[in-house]
Amino acid sequence: MIYLDNSATSFPKPKEVQKALNEVFTKYGANPGRSGHSFSLTSALKVNEIREDLASFFNVSRPEKVIFTSGCTEALNLAILGSVQEGGHVICSVNDHNSVLRPLFELKAKGVIDITVVEPENSARLTSKDIEKHIKLNTYMVCVNHISNVDGMEAELEAIGELCAQHCIYFLVDGAQSAGHAKLDMQKQHIDFLAIAPHKGLYALQGVGVLCYSPKVKLLPIKFGGTGTDSINVRQPLEAPEAFESGTIATPAIISLGAGLKFVKEHFEEIVSKLDDLTTYLNYELRNIEGVKVYTHPDNANGVLSFNIKDLPSTEVTSLLDSKYKICARSGLHCAPLKHKFNSTTYQGSVRLSLSYFSTFTEISKTLKAIKEIAKS
Amino acid sequence: MIYLDNSATSFPKPKEVQKALNEVFTKYGANPGRSGHSFSLTSALKVNEIREDLASFFNVSRPEKVIFTSGCTEALNLAILGSVQEGGHVICSVNDHNSVLRPLFELKAKGVIDITVVEPENSARLTSKDIEKHIKLNTYMVCVNHISNVDGMEAELEAIGELCAQHCIYFLVDGAQSAGHAKLDMQKQHIDFLAIAPHKGLYALQGVGVLCYSPKVKLLPIKFGGTGTDSINVRQPLEAPEAFESGTIATPAIISLGAGLKFVKEHFEEIVSKLDDLTTYLNYELRNIEGVKVYTHPDNANGVLSFNIKDLPSTEVTSLLDSKYKICARSGLHCAPLKHKFNSTTYQGSVRLSLSYFSTFTEISKTLKAIKEIAKS
Repeated sequence: MIYLDNSATSFPKPKEVQKALNEVFTKYGANPGRSGHSFSLTSALKVNEIREDLASFFNVSRPEKVIFTSGCTEALNLAILGSVQEGGHVICSVNDHNSVLRPLFELKAKGVIDITVVEPENSARLTSKDIEKHIKLNTYMVCVNHISNVDGMEAELEAIGELCAQHCIYFLVDGAQSAGHAKLDMQKQHIDFLAIAPHKGLYALQGVGVLCYSPKVKLLPIKFGGTGTDSINVRQPLEAPEAFESGTIATPAIISLGAGLKFVKEHFEEIVSKLDDLTTYLNYELRNIEGVKVYTHPDNANGVLSFNIKDLPSTEVTSLLDSKYKICARSGLHCAPLKHKFNSTTYQGSVRLSLSYFSTFTEISKTLKAIKEIAKS
Repeated sequence: MIYLDNSATSFPKPKEVQKALNEVFTKYGANPGRSGHSFSLTSALKVNEIREDLASFFNVSRPEKVIFTSGCTEALNLAILGSVQEGGHVICSVNDHNSVLRPLFELKAKGVIDITVVEPENSARLTSKDIEKHIKLNTYMVCVNHISNVDGMEAELEAIGELCAQHCIYFLVDGAQSAGHAKLDMQKQHIDFLAIAPHKGLYALQGVGVLCYSPKVKLLPIKFGGTGTDSINVRQPLEAPEAFESGTIATPAIISLGAGLKFVKEHFEEIVSKLDDLTTYLNYELRNIEGVKVYTHPDNANGVLSFNIKDLPSTEVTSLLDSKYKICARSGLHCAPLKHKFNSTTYQGSVRLSLSYFSTFTEISKTLKAIKEIAKS
């Protein structure tokens, strides 16, 4: 099997992750932050260590501003719904995933906020220029997809971050595809909310997400329950991180994230350069195949690439890749409808190949050969 | 180490759970419901099989009315916030955990609903009589904790369910402590919402919860994002289960739940009778120790038991149990403040011993010996 669906979830995971996970059946079996016994404290200390590692890796101002959620979608919901300003205006872009669009459009439908959806002028990048012209007096948030999950289009984080800082606007970055694959620095890039899908580029298990936020942010919980703090109070406490982590947290997935993050830190330069090499090769060769249209700009060599073959439905191509060549790829709209409208691929969808550190040159060559055969037949 | 904190999370897990989990690194590594390739379908089919197993075990009308959440807290939040009726009235009880109380009191503080907190008249059971006298014209929901996480007090589900059905009121059961340890039957007990913490009595990993609901229920999503369905639409679809499972679900924890559920099904009678035996023995012997006050009624022999020693702070007792005897127990308020007010233990909290199928007679005897020594000194 050739697995090129790493934007859905990375596979395989590093051996270190599996090893770490086995410790939840021995060393880290208790519920952290719920009891005072040493076995529970061992789990709590481990979770805290991973929180600190994440804060350091993404340059978050303080570890308690790293919130563990159930996934990137919950992280984005917490950021968007938990900081909503009634009567305000939010800027997002066609690159955004439904995990950003759907909470925003829910708020719009309720008459709470207004939204502008930005289209990038430049075919390689979402720029601060694209954003700037849409800023209104009541704009309080800009949402940006760091790396589009459809075609890898990148956003110029630092410039957009600076623009937002100048205007005192929250800058939300959807790092679902980029965390672990590209540099993210909350402070240097002036990011106020950073949402992460650790089961992708950080090689964690599915079942945990992360929201990091800046000191500027005023955030309210969207989920209520036991926090292990101020238990006498039937109202939700507001102290981070507990206020935003009601209920038992996903310790096993968090422990896998700790191991995945360690792996990424140790191999970061290598990961970035490998994704660059393989994506560039893939993009170049695909463009030479007759009948293939590539949607990914060659500058965006970050492991996410989309294409179509003539007017074949993208589902038919992935179905052939799967059944005839045992290649796992994704087709359809990839939960990002506005990007497909923008690319004029709403009807056809697109075939997405998405890479990880474990993808190889041989796998890419075999995949190119398969696509050549499909395009020919 | 003697682990008697199974109400926080069960430990150890059955070997079958660990074995099943290892398969997420091989067979079930893809993201279910997000791609069409066979590797993804293998995960999707497995998740669906577990959904069906849960529906069958709890007698849910249809598998799509079994929703995977991040935990029992999210399940309760979804039930309470997703079915809220403005201007309505909700009945809960002093047995409720903050995961029920805090979402309810959030709605009350916003002026959306009114709440009545019921105190049980009978010292062993929360009865339908306790509930009935508080039903008003605008009461639309009754929330009941099946087994109190503080002292194991049980609720008479079937009678309360019948009462709710007669009055066309939603009947919500918090099954956090009971699922896997006591009989739960959605249809026989007229339950409309059943929230479950699989990492407790179903021996799953932490990081997944379950909400089952009845055909009578009108439920709206509280989290918005990619569902893998109707991707062209920037508004949240409303079809279950996807509408309520936005984002990547916690497949590894769900797979562990599948294995845990299978284990429980195979050992159910044995589990119930073992918990009954050991709790009864523990309760009887504790009552014979001078200076010990037990809060658990002998009729509630379900594995959850609370006590105090004289006027010693409960934290001091668990601290001694931990440091001197390597016994893991929980002290404090256990996220259930109103129950402690009711038991007059707000200041002292209580020491909780909570059992699982893996607890042994020898462990209980050693624990009793330790408590005797502490009470004497």
